[in-house]
Amino acid sequence: MNWAVIMAGGRGTRFWPASRNQTPKQFLALFGKKTLLEQTASRLGTAVTSDRRIAVTQKDKKSLVQRLLQLPRQQVIGEPVGRNTAPCMILAAFEISRRDPDAVIALLPSDHRIADPVRFRKALKAAFRSARSTGMPVTFGIRPTEPHTGYGYLEMGVEDHRIGEFTIRRLKAFHEKPSKEKAERFLKSGRFLWNSGMFVWRADSLLDAAREHLPEAFLIAREISADRSLKAMNRLFPKMPNVSIDYGLMEKLKGRILTMPADFGWSDVGSWNALAQLLPADSSGNSAPAGTVFIRSSGNFVKSTGKLVALVGIQNAVVVETPDALLICSKSETESIREAVNALEQSGRRSFL
Amino acid sequence: MNWAVIMAGGRGTRFWPASRNQTPKQFLALFGKKTLLEQTASRLGTAVTSDRRIAVTQKDKKSLVQRLLQLPRQQVIGEPVGRNTAPCMILAAFEISRRDPDAVIALLPSDHRIADPVRFRKALKAAFRSARSTGMPVTFGIRPTEPHTGYGYLEMGVEDHRIGEFTIRRLKAFHEKPSKEKAERFLKSGRFLWNSGMFVWRADSLLDAAREHLPEAFLIAREISADRSLKAMNRLFPKMPNVSIDYGLMEKLKGRILTMPADFGWSDVGSWNALAQLLPADSSGNSAPAGTVFIRSSGNFVKSTGKLVALVGIQNAVVVETPDALLICSKSETESIREAVNALEQSGRRSFL
Repeated sequence: MNWAVIMAGGRGTRFWPASRNQTPKQFLALFGKKTLLEQTASRLGTAVTSDRRIAVTQKDKKSLVQRLLQLPRQQVIGEPVGRNTAPCMILAAFEISRRDPDAVIALLPSDHRIADPVRFRKALKAAFRSARSTGMPVTFGIRPTEPHTGYGYLEMGVEDHRIGEFTIRRLKAFHEKPSKEKAERFLKSGRFLWNSGMFVWRADSLLDAAREHLPEAFLIAREISADRSLKAMNRLFPKMPNVSIDYGLMEKLKGRILTMPADFGWSDVGSWNALAQLLPADSSGNSAPAGTVFIRSSGNFVKSTGKLVALVGIQNAVVVETPDALLICSKSETESIREAVNALEQSGRRSFL
Repeated sequence: MNWAVIMAGGRGTRFWPASRNQTPKQFLALFGKKTLLEQTASRLGTAVTSDRRIAVTQKDKKSLVQRLLQLPRQQVIGEPVGRNTAPCMILAAFEISRRDPDAVIALLPSDHRIADPVRFRKALKAAFRSARSTGMPVTFGIRPTEPHTGYGYLEMGVEDHRIGEFTIRRLKAFHEKPSKEKAERFLKSGRFLWNSGMFVWRADSLLDAAREHLPEAFLIAREISADRSLKAMNRLFPKMPNVSIDYGLMEKLKGRILTMPADFGWSDVGSWNALAQLLPADSSGNSAPAGTVFIRSSGNFVKSTGKLVALVGIQNAVVVETPDALLICSKSETESIREAVNALEQSGRRSFL
């Protein structure tokens, strides 16, 4: 059957001050009233039924995730420490295999935006079929619409097969985040896709690859899964290598990876500026709650907890107000928000982290 | 004896959102913990004792002013409507004359900053002596330190007399707010002073001038003062002409006005930007509460009600946060804050006015 592993263990400072250690990005409602995490689960619809969804998060956020996704305890894995994506994916694959040896698993980050869930489900179903029949991981590649330098790229190889309207190709190579010039060449050539970080893989093939390429993680995960106690999890999981599934497994499988070009309005929403670009704006490029006052101000993004905001002569700023903090950041500097958080950390003001 | 009339009837939008209809600038504590109004009274010290201070304000702020200045009812005049400075000054002169026919009155705006109260008191005492002996109004002229285009200027004439270290001169002419070029010429010539709006005048001479040049206001004020009832005030005061003491009386007295060059760290604090220039700043020119985080940000002014503020890549902005509103304004646009307030007024959001 088709399963999904929703990765909700991420942390980060890019959405400070809305995001904090206790409420990372996936717990924010950046689009509408539901959190990104909830939207990740609900867009699966009938493609993966609720009883075959596993969420992975930090130990202290287990009950929050259970509540948000309305999942029973045994479908949420709480990591005692963060070890990137490979260990938790291998552990989840063991858990799923035990219940369903023929499982095919979709791995899904929980903090992305997908504007067209109908098209997403269509692509997901095709990817499940492709992964099931080939035993290879099927990565989702997004057709680039701009020379984005914040994404990794997938270079397409030859066509492998087709499923309905979808053409599944061999993956020729992974590419790191490119320079602007490189990104422009990538865009022009038509042979490159944005690496969405989402893929579909048969559980048995995934575990085979793990046994071969990440034997340590494989053995630890097997032991945790066999023991099934919280004690074993807390004792053994910290011994896992800290490695991503891309580097730890995918890169080792070159030539035996598929990629499926898709187009369902995907964004990883990597910053306040990225979010601003995805939200509707007025004719001056301002995106803000109704009632915000703009005088000779353009290109601004305002998020406030109900307080009236007035901007006078301000261009291209991000303004985020929370009950205890206020960030004002140039749109071109949203990558530097981390520095502000670091300053708070260094001065010991933990309540703001 | 020496009296003071403290003019606390001003309104304005330049310090929005901190200032509102109910709390205009004079009720804000912009320097330290006391309001500008309280500082205006307390810097008088023994130069004008508390029982000889009269405050004028809007009717609905009478009790607030009484409380802040610890004055009895009969020393606070509540105007039912605003009619600029001449009517209230004439009325106050009648009130004071009735109690003390030989009074000399200092007229003092309540929303200015004076950095050196000791020097101010010295100058004030000299001005009282000069006004008493000459019967002419003695205006306080501030030696300009920059070519300010936001102030009116006083052009000095010949020396009239000296009192201690102070040289009192005839006033040659009033000048409106000048252009930048004109202001630079004023500064260079050394013959021009900033018009502080403060002056000292004998009550009898003031009333003589009023009878001659503003007979309508004179008669109405006399009637109100004779009646001494709230009813008379409410009925008659609105009939007053709307005119400033500068235009209504001073301009008519050309040649018979004195001016006293003084230097006691005066500013009318005309905008958030002006305030920022008067407050201490760090080496990057940022003036903000302790704990504010600045990353590649300079020249900013931050005022917040306790919320942590972080600025990233922001230059020369004014940030003012109150419990219900947040203003972010380019320092070069603080004169345009009025437009934001107008927008709120036009959209009927009275709670923010």
